[in-house]
Amino acid sequence: MTLAYHRPQSGPLRWREVDLLDYKRDSRASYRDVTRQVLFDDPALACQLRYFEVAPGGHTTLERHEHAHAVMIERGHGRCLIGDRVFDVAEHDLVHIPPLTWHQFRAAEEEALGFLCMVNAERDRPQLPTSDDLARLRETGIVAAFIAT
Amino acid sequence: MTLAYHRPQSGPLRWREVDLLDYKRDSRASYRDVTRQVLFDDPALACQLRYFEVAPGGHTTLERHEHAHAVMIERGHGRCLIGDRVFDVAEHDLVHIPPLTWHQFRAAEEEALGFLCMVNAERDRPQLPTSDDLARLRETGIVAAFIAT
Repeated sequence: MTLAYHRPQSGPLRWREVDLLDYKRDSRASYRDVTRQVLFDDPALACQLRYFEVAPGGHTTLERHEHAHAVMIERGHGRCLIGDRVFDVAEHDLVHIPPLTWHQFRAAEEEALGFLCMVNAERDRPQLPTSDDLARLRETGIVAAFIAT
Repeated sequence: MTLAYHRPQSGPLRWREVDLLDYKRDSRASYRDVTRQVLFDDPALACQLRYFEVAPGGHTTLERHEHAHAVMIERGHGRCLIGDRVFDVAEHDLVHIPPLTWHQFRAAEEEALGFLCMVNAERDRPQLPTSDDLARLRETGIVAAFIAT
């Protein structure tokens, strides 16, 4: 996409010439009903800004990586897992995911969850949990319930 | 500020433990009624994410710098100058300011203008226009009108 000076919103959290992408190319990753739009990917900037939208009842992949995420919720509400904690999230909430911390976002059953996510342009690939990782995560009751839903 | 996993919005586009800062420390810079909040400033991330709010009728400084800006409007509407062009901007519009490009944001008279701005954590200081720069900017009618308001 070209870097226009001004790209007006063309529909609710959609923009002309910003492609609506599949969330993941990795077919092993488990997720449901998530779209991805890359809003800014500029060689002059060391980070990218992306917009993700999780349809009602959908969820992102449970994963971790060396790079950090800086997130602002833009629409709707839902919950997110970070490490061994689960948070209710809603519009304009800020979420910070430190390096190598398991995380997952889930939209509410009745409403989509949309969020901005800032990441380093140069970053490692996400890691998926092994069965050992999953067993460890399930030792915390609230985490077991979150990843089972 | 500590990097909390989850920082809920505590008021409209305000967050607990995120300080409401003066827009500029440089007293030579001309601006009116602008606040700044640094939402994410994480050594693990190569960019910062800030939220600026310009009160009704207010404006940011007319400036340029080597670093680029990636902006998403979060509330209200107004106009922005980028180079020799002026754009009307409203909620969720994307604005990209390339390196060394004069720019300024103005809120509408009746409504505040709030926007997110992603910048490299390591960046140069803004440059203010010299009288020669201002004379050149005023050669374009729409720019002359914008910076005169």
